[in-house]
Order: sequence, then C-alpha cells, then structure tokens
Amino acid sequence: MIVEMVTGAGVEQVDDVVQRAKSLGFQVQLNLGTDKTVVAILGSNTGQVPTDTFAVLPGVESVTRVMKPYKLASREFKTEDSLVSVGGIEIGGKRVVVMAGPCAVESEKQLMEVARAVKDSGASILRGGAFKPRTSPFSFQGLGEVGLELLAQAREKLDMPVVTEVVDPHDVDLVARYADILQVGSRNMQNFALLTDIGRSKRPVLLKRGFSCTITEWLTAADYLLAEGNNQIILCERGIRTFEDSIRFSLDISAIPVVKRFSHLPVVVDPSHAAGHYSVVPAIAKAAVAAGADGLLIEVHPNPKEALIDGLQSLTPSDFARLMEELRQIARSVGRYV
Amino acid sequence: MIVEMVTGAGVEQVDDVVQRAKSLGFQVQLNLGTDKTVVAILGSNTGQVPTDTFAVLPGVESVTRVMKPYKLASREFKTEDSLVSVGGIEIGGKRVVVMAGPCAVESEKQLMEVARAVKDSGASILRGGAFKPRTSPFSFQGLGEVGLELLAQAREKLDMPVVTEVVDPHDVDLVARYADILQVGSRNMQNFALLTDIGRSKRPVLLKRGFSCTITEWLTAADYLLAEGNNQIILCERGIRTFEDSIRFSLDISAIPVVKRFSHLPVVVDPSHAAGHYSVVPAIAKAAVAAGADGLLIEVHPNPKEALIDGLQSLTPSDFARLMEELRQIARSVGRYV
Amino acid sequence: MIVEMVTGAGVEQVDDVVQRAKSLGFQVQLNLGTDKTVVAILGSNTGQVPTDTFAVLPGVESVTRVMKPYKLASREFKTEDSLVSVGGIEIGGKRVVVMAGPCAVESEKQLMEVARAVKDSGASILRGGAFKPRTSPFSFQGLGEVGLELLAQAREKLDMPVVTEVVDPHDVDLVARYADILQVGSRNMQNFALLTDIGRSKRPVLLKRGFSCTITEWLTAADYLLAEGNNQIILCERGIRTFEDSIRFSLDISAIPVVKRFSHLPVVVDPSHAAGHYSVVPAIAKAAVAAGADGLLIEVHPNPKEALIDGLQSLTPSDFARLMEELRQIARSVGRYV
Amino acid sequence: MIVEMVTGAGVEQVDDVVQRAKSLGFQVQLNLGTDKTVVAILGSNTGQVPTDTFAVLPGVESVTRVMKPYKLASREFKTEDSLVSVGGIEIGGKRVVVMAGPCAVESEKQLMEVARAVKDSGASILRGGAFKPRTSPFSFQGLGEVGLELLAQAREKLDMPVVTEVVDPHDVDLVARYADILQVGSRNMQNFALLTDIGRSKRPVLLKRGFSCTITEWLTAADYLLAEGNNQIILCERGIRTFEDSIRFSLDISAIPVVKRFSHLPVVVDPSHAAGHYSVVPAIAKAAVAAGADGLLIEVHPNPKEALIDGLQSLTPSDFARLMEELRQIARSVGRYV
Repeated sequence: MIVEMVTGAGVEQVDDVVQRAKSLGFQVQLNLGTDKTVVAILGSNTGQVPTDTFAVLPGVESVTRVMKPYKLASREFKTEDSLVSVGGIEIGGKRVVVMAGPCAVESEKQLMEVARAVKDSGASILRGGAFKPRTSPFSFQGLGEVGLELLAQAREKLDMPVVTEVVDPHDVDLVARYADILQVGSRNMQNFALLTDIGRSKRPVLLKRGFSCTITEWLTAADYLLAEGNNQIILCERGIRTFEDSIRFSLDISAIPVVKRFSHLPVVVDPSHAAGHYSVVPAIAKAAVAAGADGLLIEVHPNPKEALIDGLQSLTPSDFARLMEELRQIARSVGRYV
Repeated sequence: MIVEMVTGAGVEQVDDVVQRAKSLGFQVQLNLGTDKTVVAILGSNTGQVPTDTFAVLPGVESVTRVMKPYKLASREFKTEDSLVSVGGIEIGGKRVVVMAGPCAVESEKQLMEVARAVKDSGASILRGGAFKPRTSPFSFQGLGEVGLELLAQAREKLDMPVVTEVVDPHDVDLVARYADILQVGSRNMQNFALLTDIGRSKRPVLLKRGFSCTITEWLTAADYLLAEGNNQIILCERGIRTFEDSIRFSLDISAIPVVKRFSHLPVVVDPSHAAGHYSVVPAIAKAAVAAGADGLLIEVHPNPKEALIDGLQSLTPSDFARLMEELRQIARSVGRYV
Repeated sequence: MIVEMVTGAGVEQVDDVVQRAKSLGFQVQLNLGTDKTVVAILGSNTGQVPTDTFAVLPGVESVTRVMKPYKLASREFKTEDSLVSVGGIEIGGKRVVVMAGPCAVESEKQLMEVARAVKDSGASILRGGAFKPRTSPFSFQGLGEVGLELLAQAREKLDMPVVTEVVDPHDVDLVARYADILQVGSRNMQNFALLTDIGRSKRPVLLKRGFSCTITEWLTAADYLLAEGNNQIILCERGIRTFEDSIRFSLDISAIPVVKRFSHLPVVVDPSHAAGHYSVVPAIAKAAVAAGADGLLIEVHPNPKEALIDGLQSLTPSDFARLMEELRQIARSVGRYV
Repeated sequence: MIVEMVTGAGVEQVDDVVQRAKSLGFQVQLNLGTDKTVVAILGSNTGQVPTDTFAVLPGVESVTRVMKPYKLASREFKTEDSLVSVGGIEIGGKRVVVMAGPCAVESEKQLMEVARAVKDSGASILRGGAFKPRTSPFSFQGLGEVGLELLAQAREKLDMPVVTEVVDPHDVDLVARYADILQVGSRNMQNFALLTDIGRSKRPVLLKRGFSCTITEWLTAADYLLAEGNNQIILCERGIRTFEDSIRFSLDISAIPVVKRFSHLPVVVDPSHAAGHYSVVPAIAKAAVAAGADGLLIEVHPNPKEALIDGLQSLTPSDFARLMEELRQIARSVGRYV
C-alpha cells in the first residue's frame, strides 16, 4: 500500500502513518521526495486492509493499493488453473462446456422438449430457472419447488447435470437437494448472506458477475465462497451496464483474458442476458469462445413467442443447433472442442 | 405500449400483435404509416406487461413503454406526498430530518458519544450499523445482535428513533425487534427475497438506491415493499457508479426532483457513502437540501482515525455541528427547517 | 414519433400537438386511452425532427422516437452492404482486412521496420500517427508533416495503402495529399467542423467511435460525412468508457452485430486502444473476427519498451506474427480469410 | 510514480526500471517486500511522464501515479483562487455570476427580448449560440456571423458581456472579434487543435467539461489553454453521461468541491444541458449554488415552444425571474450574493 502525503506534510504526520503501519504488523519504507513524502507499507496481507486505515490520517493525500483485495481467488494464491467437475464434465479444461435450456421452467412438456433438443445439439448441462428474481413484484416469479422437481426429472431422463439459481438464503438447502450447480444471479453477487450460505453447501457454484461490479469486486465475492472451503467455483460474465442503449447489457469481452490473467477460476459467458435480443446472441457467443471462455450459458425455448420470461433473448432449438455448429468451428480454431 | 413493425412487415404479422394484445385484455389502435406500421396497445396495466411479450413476435422492430413499470410508488397511483412517521418525527414534511451516527456500532462508549453529540447538534434519528455488508469476507462484519442492543439502549437514553440495516432475510424479525426503521442497503435493492420479508414486517423502511440502478428500477423495487401492504417507505439516494474516479460514487442530485415528480414517497440523501471522503460531504449535503431532499443520512465518528469501517467518510462531531449550522441556513432559504 | 400526454391532459393540449405535427407536414393518429391519450406522428422524416419539438408543449409527458435520427447510414436507406475500396483492397467483403503499424511514426527506421514486419505477417494496410491528439499539452504530439512523408515513402516501397489521423480542419488538405484513408479519432467523432471538412475531401474515412457515444450517435456522425457526398466510410469500434478499471476501455463486442443490423457500412475493430495492454489484445482481436468484424487496426512496435506513445498496448512483430496465424484460423472458421 | 513488480521479478528486471527512471532524471527508492518489489520514482515532473514508460518493461505488474498529470491548473502550482474578470464582472469571487440567454440566437427580436428579461431579473452576462454543434447534419446549425452581430448589438444596448461557443479553429478570430468569453463545448473539450488556437487568442474562456471526461482530464485540458499563456479560464460542469435515463445527463454535483480542492480555477454550472428538461433545472441550479459554484449558465427563451433548439430545457423569462429570487436566498445562506 502506498501512502502519499500532501505537499508540506509535517514530520509528525508522517510518523503517525509509520506508527499505524507498524502497529498492524507491516514493514515501512519512506521516500522523502523533493516535493512529496511517500510511505510504502509492505507485507503480504496489505490487500486485506482497507485503504481508509491510512487515508483518514492527517496530512495524507491519497492511498493506493498495490496488492489486490481478493486473495483465495487470485492466481498468486494458486498458480494452476482450477477445474470444476460436475457429473463427469470438467469445466476449465479443453472442452468448451455449453449449458443451455429455458430461462424459466414453465412445464414438464416445455422443459423436456428444450432439454432433449439442446442435448441433441451437443449441450452438456441443462439450465433452467425455478426461482426467478424479477424487477417487478407483479411479474411471474417462477414455479419454485415444482420447477426444481421438473429439473431433477429431466436430469434423470437425459443424464444431464442441472444448474439453477438460488435467490434466498432460506432456499439453499432445498435447491442443493435438486441441483448440481447452484447459480448466484447478477443482482445477488454482493448478497453476502447468500454467498456465505451457498459457500457452506459445498456444491459447485456458478457466480454471475454483478452487472455493475468490477472484476476486482467479482473475484472478492468469489473469496466469500472460497473462504467457506468451497472451491468449486465457476465465474460467469453476463454483461455490464453502460450508456449504450441498443442492447440490454454490454458484454465485457475483455473480462475473459483479464480473469484468466488474475485468477485461477474457470470463466463462462452468458450471451443471452447480455444481448437481450436473439439476433445478437450468436455473434457474442462466438466471440466469447474465440476469446478463451471455458463455456457458455445459453437460453433456448421451444417457442420463444410464448415464453413467460425473456422470450426475446431465447434461441429456438433450430437456431441453437445452427449456433452449435458454428461454435464447433470456432472452438477447433482455438485448439478446443465443444 | 407502442409496437413498431419493421419496414415491410406483412398484414399477418401485424395481426399477430393485435391478437396477442386483445388476448391480454388490451385495446389496440393501428397506425398504418407510409413507411412503418405502428400498433398502440392501450390499457391501464400495460406497465406491468414485459415489453418482450410483443418484441418477440415476428416482424416487430421495437417495443416502447408508455406506462412506467412501477405502479404503487407512482404519483399517478397516489397524488399527494406520503409522510412517514417514526417516533413522532415526520419524514416528508416541512422538516428536513437529519439521521446521523457512526457507520458501524463499535462499542457502547463510541455509540453513546456520537449519539449524544449528534443529538446536541440537532439530529433527530440515530443511524448505526450492526450487520455490515462488506466487499471482502476478511473485513469486520459488524457486532450483530450486540450492536442492536447497544442501539436500543441509546434510543431509550436519548429518545431518538434508530435506523439500522438488515442484510439477511433470516434477520428481519430480529432487527425489527430493536430498530424503528429497517434499512435496505444499496447492494440489496434488488434482493427481492429480502424486500418481500421486510415488506411483511410492516416496519418503516429506508430503501437505498442500488448504486447502478435507474430511478425506474428503484421505484419498482419500492413496489415490492408496497405490494406487501407496507407503505412506510423512505427512499435514499446514495450515489451512483460512474466513470469519475475522484470520489467513490457520484451523487445523483437530479434524482431528487425526478423522484418528487414521479413518486409520492419521501426521499433523503446519504452524502457520506456517495463522497467517500469527509471533505466532500458538506458541499453535497447542502446541495441536497437546496434541491429539495426531505432528509439526510450522515456518518459521524468521535474519532474517525480509529473507526473500524469507513472512517474516511465520517465527520467528527465538531465538523457535524458546523455543518448543521450551515444546513439550517440552507433549509430556511428553501422554506424548510432542520 | 409517439407523444404521450399526461393523465388528464385537456382536449386543447392534444390539439396543440396535432396542429404542430400537421404544420410540419406529418400525419397524425390519435389513441384516446382510458387513462392516457397517445398521439402517433407519422411520416418518413420524423427521425430528423428533434423530440423537443413536441416535448415542450403543455400537457406532454414524454416523446419517443420510432424512426432513428440517422438516415444515410441506415440499412433502410441502403439495403446491401457497402464496400470501401482502397488501393485494390476491399473492406466489407470476404476478407478480414488487417491494418497494422506503430501508434506514432517516430523515425524512418522505426516505421520501415514495423511496416515490413506487418506486411510479411499478412497485414494489408499500414497505420501510423503523424498528428497525435494527446491528453496533456506536455506530451509528444507527433512528427506532423515529416511523419506524413515517411508514411508516403513506406507506401511506395511496400505497396501498402496508408491510414493516418487528422486532428485539425486546417490539416485536412495536407493529410489528404499523403494518406489513402483519413482517420477521425475517438475524441473527434463529434467534432462536426472536422467531419464536414473531411467529408468534402471525398477520401475514404475511418470513423472511430467516440468512447462515450452510443451507436446511434456514431451512425448519425457518419451522416455528416455521407451528407457531403462521401460514401467511403469505415466504422471503427475502439472501446467505450465504463466503470471497469482493469483495462483502459471496454471493447463493445456487441457493436459489431448491432452495426451490421442497422447500417450498411463496414465495421472494423481496434483492440489495441480498447485494451491498453498488449496481453489483452490477442483475445479481443480474435473475438472481433469471430463476431463478424470486417477488419482490425492493430498497433505494432519494433521495441515497445522504447515507444514514445502507447508502448504498453503495442505488440512486438513476433507477437503480431503469432496473432495473425491465430486470426487466420478464426477467419476460416467463420467463412472468411485474412 | 509507483512501479509494482510481479511476484518473482528478477533483479535485472528491477534494475531496468531503475535505469530508465534515472535516465529520465528521476530519483528512485526501492522497497524490497517479502512478496513484491516496489519501486518509487521521485521527482517533481513525474506527473507529466506517461505511466506506460515503465508499465511496458518486463516484470512490471502495474504503475500508479502519485502526481496528477495536470500541472498549471493545479492548486499546488497556484495556491490562491483565480479570478476571471470580464467587463468589470469578477468570476470566482463573492458574487455568484449568472449567465443567461437563449440556447441559439434566432433573431434580433428573440435575442433582445430574452436579454432584457434576464438582465432585469439579475443576470450579468448574456449567453447565446451562433455556431451550434448538432448531433445530426440535418438539424439547424445556428446563424453564424449574423448571430455574432446580434450578440454584439445586445451587448452594446444592455451593457452585458457576451459568452458564445466556437466550434471550429477557423472561426476563433472571428468569434473573438465579437465575444467577451469564448466557450468550448462539451464535445470539444479534447479537441486539442481548437484548445490551442483559443489559448492563443488570450480571451477569457469557458471550458465545458466533456460529458464523459474525468475531472483529471478536464483540468489537463485546461492546461492546454494555460500553456498558451491564457489564464482567464472558467470551468463549467454540465452533466456527465451515466446509465440513468430519466434526464439527459447526470449533473456531477461533487465536481464542485473536488475542483475547488484540486484547482485554483473558478467553476460554474450549466443546469440546463444537464437536465434537458425545464422542470429539473431549478432544483439543480439551487443545489449548485449551495455546493459552492461560482456561477450558473442558464437557458431562457421567450417562447420555449417555438425555440429552434433545446426548447425543452429552456426556462421562460418568468420562470427565470422566480428562480433568481430563490437563488438569491440560497446564495445569502452560503455567504454570497447573486
């Protein structure tokens, strides 16, 4: 941590900074510049100390982190790539794992129809929402436990692991009884109560990035799960909020190489929620694979026109089949397979 | 809702839109333009229908809302200003209500010292965190129930109502036993499970705006509380995330007149979290009152240098006393009082 | 254009809207809803009328565009893809055109070294800055006309067309004497004086997107060039400003399919300025090609450590050669070639 | 400047950093941490050196500025507040200077009517656009020199200095012949060719903040003017682009205290362009004065319904008169006057 003093800061002010650092067990090195004094605070845990600890002292102009605030999710903590294994499928390896299915589970017929179609086209994990976080209380909130049962049935019949969202700490145990991967939605990325409960479940987790959270905050949220001893974490980029209004969210394509550089966790991409429109989904799905994503999360509906939620961003089964063909080509061109 | 067809859309595509609208009980009016056909969907509940319902149909170019997606929080639903009454103090009336106290309750001594000081300077409600949502799992998470007890003691001794945050649906009943106002933090504004449970408690609620949520989403989140029959809602603007990096969050000063125009709910401002630095707090606190805010939420610490959380944005008791003097002048100049 | 009246708007207020629309030569259709009156303004030029024309009238709640504000750049104006031809190289066709070179021209030796290297690796157009827009007046501003001469020499020796930036209306004629493609930088996308002068030059133009401009504003800026009779326009996505701070700008990958949908103009991507760091460039370059970009603009420097500007985002010639290999694979997988 | 090495960086890599710093004339201090080596680069001109100079070296993880990149605009360069004097009116002193008038000069009648009205209500400087930067080439672009003549006439008749925008380096001399203050619009804040020409004119300048530029970039742009020896600079905050869509731009109220802290230049606020809607203008104008703004730039039109540009954000003369009354109260409450 680097503490910059204001021009003209007094000796006793610099001393205050030094004393505080030492009292926290850190080493200190002083740079007495011609214009400015700069204090470097050294130690392997400075990333976990808030910058305010020093910024609040008199005579301090600014405090800058050198160490990142996340620890367990960092590549410095664990050098080699993490693999998450779900029902024999490895996420983070050579295979680009496609998770597909409807936004919301609506009925047995709808779910089975989609599930069969996406499996036939090569998807290996089934996605589907039973509990839906909706912006308005007057919107359809999902089938709840009935939806979970339908997902479990589909898994048995088709031998596909299932990923589904948990929105309430009260429901973690319930969902964990049915699902193979617990999904944390974008709006809950900093719902720390939920993260802690999910971390304790020891189930594989798909952690969506908050739509306005930095990559640093995302990896720090992963630390909540990792700190509970759960190291089966899959990160999921799903678009960030920007000023651009032609799509719902702007997919942050650079998040893929950046996460790969700073973290050991696998990262997948959800082009459906980012785009918000089926016509944009294929282009950004292909881009994600070319950029190095370990997988995709894609919404498919047998009849998007009749979908209860997010029909506009869902592909039809035949659109999905065509996209899978294209993804196979892209994956091969970067030395992977779908 | 306005449905714009693509150039060259066929008659049967327009018909599909019309049939779907009628099946949902809406009226329809067609505008057969020279270049484009536009279908207006009419009815008082169109705001609660997702735009995707129509956007997904073939031949549709775009769908635009005319009615807002929130209903109970809107000024069209309730014309006159809502007043929230807490321990005899009215929020939303002539008085600009100042809620002050430490970011986190740290000890009886710290809390009582601040509470007395802010009361002496004219604050009428005591704020203080017992459960703290922290970005990193390795940071201090608050005193929990012990903190709630200290807040309740302070209330008794000083006759000041207390506002404190709930972060977990499991804790709603617990916090409601101690606090006068339940605070929903910025990161939980779209934690719908928490909103529903808090709505049911029927306690006054302070609903902070999500730091990347639009005013429309904020008022729609208020609908979650109002839909449970809880109409004691105070909105709190606390800064939004932008590209500007000199402060922590950019206070959205225009949120005050915009909320006043579109909603009947009172709105207060938290300059401390927006600024992130004590030197910026007074200017934006004064701006908020000049712009018509119904109150302020300000962090004060007896010794910011030793604060366990957010010391940098806390005022000292004497800074706070000086600010209250200035706020009195501003309030008077806009026909109100502190 | 859709004009929504406030609840309870009077007949004479609706009439005002109707009269104004008719006076501008538009047709009108009225939707007298139960709660709201909505007026649809119809005609093929409504996109060029400011929404304020109606929004300012008493009793109007909101005005929404149906037609886009750009016209000449729209796919409705011209259905088939535009091709831009420069020295026999077509941009917008099957070939993914790679434009590469140093950020700034520094010397004959540096330029020729890079130019030869990128040509050998398969780049077809040479990029290089002679006039550099710099954030600070104390930074290196480019070699000016000397740089242009060096670029022209390189073109002759290597038979590569040259693209370079113009920053000042005074320099348009000068730069047009040397360059094959005139580049408008991100900070000048809404410098309408410059756009008009460049439009008049009738030279091919590479129009970079303003780093905080919407796609709609970008296409409307292209209208400035097209309105002067210049239809040799190449759009260039180069990253937008967001809250994410791990990279310099966030590449808006969805801009590619969105531009392809709404405009007939070719679109290329500059991964170097978006990333700001060489380690991120290859991943987003590959993503751009997978998403359908018509070309790339890549910074290469023989010795990035010694670059006068933007060394951090420059690839070395050998990194560039490796990337070109990878891009060839990706291009093939989407049915194109580099 | 602080250079952080990657974990495990070699001695020769650290040495490279040290040598480069020394070759640029800086002093260096090394912090050999247990996990990381950190190099502090010291000297009074490090703010003017790009961070890339070091970031590009092998083994460097990140480079952080301690000194700001702007120099002449900084409070460290000049401690006391700068005053700008125009026709006997001082900007930056006790008086809150109100500049008012129409968005665009449309006719002698319109201009004189507004000018008289705003003068009667207490405005001291007349604003009005002759050259208008418009998003679309098909919109009204201003009256040009005819507009300048009308402004000059109004100045003579009413003894009010005039502020008007320059959009093209070709026009600087022309506009300087007529206007007292040259305005640089938001879209031209980083049009460095224009800044340099305006700086040379030695006329007082009103430098609007780019709608997506940080305060640091704004003050660095001011350095372009100051570097030409022009120190009559007024900064103008006019709203920044955010995700919020209820208003046109979000006024950055915290820019006022932040600019006051880091710069000696006066700062005024344009609530009209920020709000984009007359109903929001008064609240944020009052907020700006309460927060410490040195002045306001307000659009007034005799008949906003008939305005050729931006009618929606213009106040009527009577609305303006009422607002001036309110501003007088606010100014008094912060120890100033209008």
